[in-house]
Amino acid sequence: MGSTDKTTNQSTFITFEGGEGTGKSTQVQRLAERLKAAGRTVVTTREPGGAPSAEEIRTLLVTGEPDRWTALSEALLNFTARAEHLEHTIRPALARDAIVLCDRFVDSTMAYQAYAGGVPPETITTLTRLVVGETMPDLTLILDLPVEVGLSRAQGRGDHENRYEKKGEAYHHKLRDAFLEIAKAEPNRCAVIDASGTIDDIADAIWSIVCERLSLSENAQ
Amino acid sequence: MGSTDKTTNQSTFITFEGGEGTGKSTQVQRLAERLKAAGRTVVTTREPGGAPSAEEIRTLLVTGEPDRWTALSEALLNFTARAEHLEHTIRPALARDAIVLCDRFVDSTMAYQAYAGGVPPETITTLTRLVVGETMPDLTLILDLPVEVGLSRAQGRGDHENRYEKKGEAYHHKLRDAFLEIAKAEPNRCAVIDASGTIDDIADAIWSIVCERLSLSENAQ
Repeated sequence: MGSTDKTTNQSTFITFEGGEGTGKSTQVQRLAERLKAAGRTVVTTREPGGAPSAEEIRTLLVTGEPDRWTALSEALLNFTARAEHLEHTIRPALARDAIVLCDRFVDSTMAYQAYAGGVPPETITTLTRLVVGETMPDLTLILDLPVEVGLSRAQGRGDHENRYEKKGEAYHHKLRDAFLEIAKAEPNRCAVIDASGTIDDIADAIWSIVCERLSLSENAQ
Repeated sequence: MGSTDKTTNQSTFITFEGGEGTGKSTQVQRLAERLKAAGRTVVTTREPGGAPSAEEIRTLLVTGEPDRWTALSEALLNFTARAEHLEHTIRPALARDAIVLCDRFVDSTMAYQAYAGGVPPETITTLTRLVVGETMPDLTLILDLPVEVGLSRAQGRGDHENRYEKKGEAYHHKLRDAFLEIAKAEPNRCAVIDASGTIDDIADAIWSIVCERLSLSENAQ
């Protein structure tokens, strides 16, 4: 990762995590605008997907019936899409010193398929080692919101990518707990953001953390 | 696996392996007929595929351009299809004491994606442990044929599932070597069959081995 030497290499990999309706994609865009205004090269992307071949796999994952795949198959499909995403989008962007902002990454697979879905966490850890290797995020922003609020916001979107929203409230409570547990276990990489405020408030909170962790000046914008 | 106690459980898992055009699917059918004539319950299946969700992944793997996926993604897609196949087809069939005959299984992923494709063999071994676990084949029949003969037969089929055939002759030589190496490393599980004879000759050779390894009487048919 480029983050090991900020003086010669400005590449940075930032992931956004959290349950349904926590506002991740909006905040990816807000942070991208601020970083671009500060003169940085930014690539915004998302998982599952982020490369043409990975988007084909996304369609298999996010549409159809809730029991379409076993949780293990969901994990494997996510890591297949991730392998393509890393190869075609993330690693090339980091290699040209871009800041990569990614909506969901390995923590989502740990939360959805292991903590909420029942796959052994060690399976996700092993797949992460095999597929992601050294390309772990420098910073992971975990957007936290009460489950009821998040699901109500997500349902308001009315799109067809709703397979996970249909999994029931207990599943989503496990997700929230999982993300908070991951943040607690890896405090150097993760930061929890209260996502119950306004879009502007959340964007400001994220900007402070990004500036602090990545040694940027907050006055850049 | 049911094979550990043949007196109370007659389930048996037999896989067919080998390069393109070695006649695997024909021999699966021939062996199924003989076993059925001997009064056994037989389930024939194939990989990638063998369950509706796994067949969707097969389509991603066997059609399109040769460089459509990285070898690591091919391995992950194969293991995703395999997880679905095991869950929905293979394990339920073995649980009801059927003999399962499967056209390709883990050895194909080791040969195609590791030996010929460049994925570390340890990655395939790890994925096998995570996904297949205890459900390894009792017997693996490796159909062996000179590469030129196999490719010429496969091209004669003229179907659209030709993505791997387009990978070039060097790739297919690596495949043949890989299958022979796997057979050498696991002689208790694997048997190499000379697939250059007639369909009847090969079927007879397979029947002898199956009867010997599974303690059936050759006179059953």
